[in-house]
Amino acid sequence: MKLVSFIVGDDVRAGLVSGDRVIDIHQASGGRLPKEMRGLIELGDEGIALMRELSALTGEYALSDLALVSPLPDPVSIRDFYAFEDHVRNARQRRGLAVVPEWYEMPVFYFTNHMSVTGPDAPITVPKGSACLDYELEISCVIGRKGKDIPVECAEDHIYGYMIMNDWSARDLQREEMKVGLGPAKGKDFATTFGPYLVTRDELESYREGDRLDLEMTATVNGVLLSKGNYKEIHYTFSAMIARASENVMLIPGEVIGSGTVGTGCLLELGEEVHPWLVPGDVVELGITGLGILKNTISAREERDHVLSPDGDDPPQASYDVQKR
Amino acid sequence: MKLVSFIVGDDVRAGLVSGDRVIDIHQASGGRLPKEMRGLIELGDEGIALMRELSALTGEYALSDLALVSPLPDPVSIRDFYAFEDHVRNARQRRGLAVVPEWYEMPVFYFTNHMSVTGPDAPITVPKGSACLDYELEISCVIGRKGKDIPVECAEDHIYGYMIMNDWSARDLQREEMKVGLGPAKGKDFATTFGPYLVTRDELESYREGDRLDLEMTATVNGVLLSKGNYKEIHYTFSAMIARASENVMLIPGEVIGSGTVGTGCLLELGEEVHPWLVPGDVVELGITGLGILKNTISAREERDHVLSPDGDDPPQASYDVQKR
Repeated sequence: MKLVSFIVGDDVRAGLVSGDRVIDIHQASGGRLPKEMRGLIELGDEGIALMRELSALTGEYALSDLALVSPLPDPVSIRDFYAFEDHVRNARQRRGLAVVPEWYEMPVFYFTNHMSVTGPDAPITVPKGSACLDYELEISCVIGRKGKDIPVECAEDHIYGYMIMNDWSARDLQREEMKVGLGPAKGKDFATTFGPYLVTRDELESYREGDRLDLEMTATVNGVLLSKGNYKEIHYTFSAMIARASENVMLIPGEVIGSGTVGTGCLLELGEEVHPWLVPGDVVELGITGLGILKNTISAREERDHVLSPDGDDPPQASYDVQKR
Repeated sequence: MKLVSFIVGDDVRAGLVSGDRVIDIHQASGGRLPKEMRGLIELGDEGIALMRELSALTGEYALSDLALVSPLPDPVSIRDFYAFEDHVRNARQRRGLAVVPEWYEMPVFYFTNHMSVTGPDAPITVPKGSACLDYELEISCVIGRKGKDIPVECAEDHIYGYMIMNDWSARDLQREEMKVGLGPAKGKDFATTFGPYLVTRDELESYREGDRLDLEMTATVNGVLLSKGNYKEIHYTFSAMIARASENVMLIPGEVIGSGTVGTGCLLELGEEVHPWLVPGDVVELGITGLGILKNTISAREERDHVLSPDGDDPPQASYDVQKR
C-alpha cells in the first residue's frame, strides 16, 4: 500500500492511495484507525490488515488536488547511515583520501534533526551562511516494530515501509564544522525531506533479488538527469543497519533510518564541472522505483525569522562573540 | 524552583521540591497544571507563575521516598556541544593533536539519542562490545521558548532551566566509528542521564558573574574526587550555543542543549593512570552548585534483550555480514 499525509483545514491526515484517489483512513475506517501516520504505524500489522479492507473503496480526494506533507510528518528520530560504497569512495577521492578499513567493519551513522522535516513540493531555503547547497539521493525505512539488539536475520520484520529521502546538505557549513571532529550537524540541520509516499514493505516484494531489492534511484535538476544508482548496490542492507542501530537501545515504531547517498547521488560527488551548487529556482526531483518522485524547488532565503529583543527593536545580527571574563 | 519527575503507580508526574518534601504539581494546582514536565515547560512563564503559588504548600511526598526519573523524561532532542576549551585541548593532546582553529570560530555540536534517557539512580549497563565505559560531566539547559535565528543577546530568555548531564561514553565504540568520519553515534547511543533536578533559570541568579554563572562542577567515582571544574570557565556560553543551534531551524520548548565535558570531566582526559574504565559496581556522582548530585551505579550487562526469530529459536549473534550478490 502507498500511504500519504495531507492537509485538511488545520489537520494533518493519513491517507491511502488508490489509483489517482486518496482515502482518508480515519474517516473511512469509521474512526477505528487513527488520524495521523505515527498512530497508524504504532498499530503495526493490525493497522495494515484494517487498511487492506479499505483499499477497495473509492477515495474522496483526488491525489493531484491534495497538499501533501512528509508521509511521516514527525519521525521519532532519524539515523542517517553511510552505506553505499561508491558514494563513500567518490566523496573521499575528491579530498584525496581512500576509504578507511573501519568502513568495511560496521555500518556507521549519525543522528540528524528529526524536527526539521518537510515533504513533497515544500520550498527549500538556502540556509543562512551557505553558498553550497546540495541534495542527497537516499532511500529510508520506517521502523514498525519495537526491538533491541535485533539480529540481522530478523531485522526486515521490523521495517514498516520505505520513503524517498532528500538529505539536503550545506557543504560549506558541513566542511567547517566537521574539521572540529563532530557531526555533521548544522550542515544538515535545516531541512530533510521525505515522500511523496510511505510504501509498505509488502508492496516492494515484486522487486526482490535475494536479500536485495532492485530499485532504480535517480535525481534530476531542472529536468536534467544527474544521478543514477540502484538500492541493490548497497553494501550494508537495511537489515544490517537496523541490527547496528538497535545495539544497546530499543528501537520503536516511527524511528527512521536513512541509507546514506547512493553513488553519484549528490553534487559534491559529481563536481562543479557537472553542475554548480543549487540556487533559488532550481527544481530537484528524486525518483526511486515503486516509491514515486519527490520534487522540491529551491527558494530564496526569507528575511530572518528572528525573535524581537525585549525593547521591541530589531536585534543585532547573531554572532558567537562571548565576553570572556 | 527545583523540579523533579517521579513515578506514582504507572504514571510519571512532575513535582515541585519544597525543602525535603515534593508537591505533585498537577494535583496541587487542582488540575490547572499538566501532569508531566514537557507540558509544564510548554506553558512557559504562565506555568512558572502558577507553580510559584504552590511553593508555600507542604508536599505530600518525602523527597527521599520517591523514585525519581530524568526531570525531563522525554526531551524533544538533545544537541551536545563541545564548549569547554580545556576538555578539547586535553582530549586532543592525548592523541598528539592540537585544537583546530575552527573550534574558535563557532560552537560545534552533534545530535545524540534523545530516546535513551535515564535519571538519578538508574543502573547504567556496560554497552555490548565495549570495555571502555566512561562518564562525562556536563551541564545542560532546557529550551523554554520557541525561536529561530535567536541572537546571542536574547538567547538567555529562551532557557527554561538547567540540569546536570552525564553523557556516558563507550570510548572503544566511539574511537572505531569516528574513524569513518561521522558521529559520535553508537559510542553514546545507549544512555544519557539527567537530574536529579530541573532548576529554573531564576534560581541560579545568585551565582551570576557578568554573563557567566559561578557553578562548581565535580565528579567522584566510588567517593574519590576525580574531576573538578566550573561552568564559568566555558568558552561558549549557552547563549552562544542557542544562537548556533537555532540558525535556520525553530527551537521549541523541551529541546535540550548539553555543554560538552568540563575540563578534567571524564576518564579519557585523566588517563588510565588516574582511574581505569568503569566496571560494574562503580558509583559515579556528578555534582554542580545549585543543581544537586546525580548518582548512578554501573551494572553488569543483562543477557541480550533480543527478539525471537520467527520459528521461536534463539537468533544467532548479530553480525553485519551481508551476502553480496
